[in-house]
Amino acid sequence: MFQSPSLEALVQELKKLPGVGNKSALRMAFHLLRAPREEAEALAKWLVRVKERVRLCVVCGNYTEEETCALCLDARRDESLICVVEQPSDIYLVESTGEYRGHYHVLHGALSPLEGVRPESIRIGELVERVARGVVKEVILATNPNVEGDATGFYIADLLKETDVIISRIARGVPVGGELEFADQLTLARAFRGRRGIE
Amino acid sequence: MFQSPSLEALVQELKKLPGVGNKSALRMAFHLLRAPREEAEALAKWLVRVKERVRLCVVCGNYTEEETCALCLDARRDESLICVVEQPSDIYLVESTGEYRGHYHVLHGALSPLEGVRPESIRIGELVERVARGVVKEVILATNPNVEGDATGFYIADLLKETDVIISRIARGVPVGGELEFADQLTLARAFRGRRGIE
Repeated sequence: MFQSPSLEALVQELKKLPGVGNKSALRMAFHLLRAPREEAEALAKWLVRVKERVRLCVVCGNYTEEETCALCLDARRDESLICVVEQPSDIYLVESTGEYRGHYHVLHGALSPLEGVRPESIRIGELVERVARGVVKEVILATNPNVEGDATGFYIADLLKETDVIISRIARGVPVGGELEFADQLTLARAFRGRRGIE
Repeated sequence: MFQSPSLEALVQELKKLPGVGNKSALRMAFHLLRAPREEAEALAKWLVRVKERVRLCVVCGNYTEEETCALCLDARRDESLICVVEQPSDIYLVESTGEYRGHYHVLHGALSPLEGVRPESIRIGELVERVARGVVKEVILATNPNVEGDATGFYIADLLKETDVIISRIARGVPVGGELEFADQLTLARAFRGRRGIE
């Protein structure tokens, strides 16, 4: 169809992005062909740099370019609170509510026996170690409100039940069966306020 | 908001793509962070290669990596027919209807006095030269069915009225006031069949 193999290859690569179908990929590719060379080169540069420079914070597992992320180093944040999320992108969502001023812990996944994700595949051990250091008073579970997220929350609550930290879960204000990413800021803010202890 | 300047920069670059807002750019960036390094590098590579390799066909102005594009070199296509479009992406749309087997001419724009696009800013002179060579029997105007596209069509029809080529325009099956890019294949195919001479 195309008279250029490079254009064809670019469209194929763009289609791998989430939410990008054939028509969107075509529009993007033709936009880039019309755009100044600098625009395509800047996008290419940051694609490569992000993969080179971004690594995981040794404390919380968030994306950072330093050893420890700025959220973990921020003395104004309450280090007695840890909010557990599945992905670094969830931190961005929680931060956008302005409702939470504690620390985070990114699991980088959720338990899923069917997909072979076991407790040792995600950063649960690191969470237990952080709690064992004694500073943490409450662990807020903000895993996705779906089967895997709930199972992960229950597993963590069970692991920590012998410690004296409070284990809470963000309220069921978030749509059940969905993913955190699709919640609006208000719903997510309310969910933080309405969190309850796990019995 | 981000703990990584590179991630922030990548999101800003992604937002320059058509149809990509803040939320889509975030999803894409986080997807790329989770994806294998090869995926981000392949996208970056083709972004740069497309800008390096793709140029305009010396005959029709389509995107190609050769001097002359494969559509112009295809002996099975009818060289007595030229379909005039505004952008190379329009060729892709017309080709996808399977309705047309002639040649193309890409103007790379449409007349727009307000935006300073004058006849000499787009490839109208090249079209007149092609017609002057004597092989062309019909020029089909498939510019966008909006003010600029219509004005461009009338301007070309006027320029060619002293020659003996037939000037036609694809039928008004395409939604008026819109852009060719948003037409479905069937509408576009009907528009080709229903083309009429410009009086």
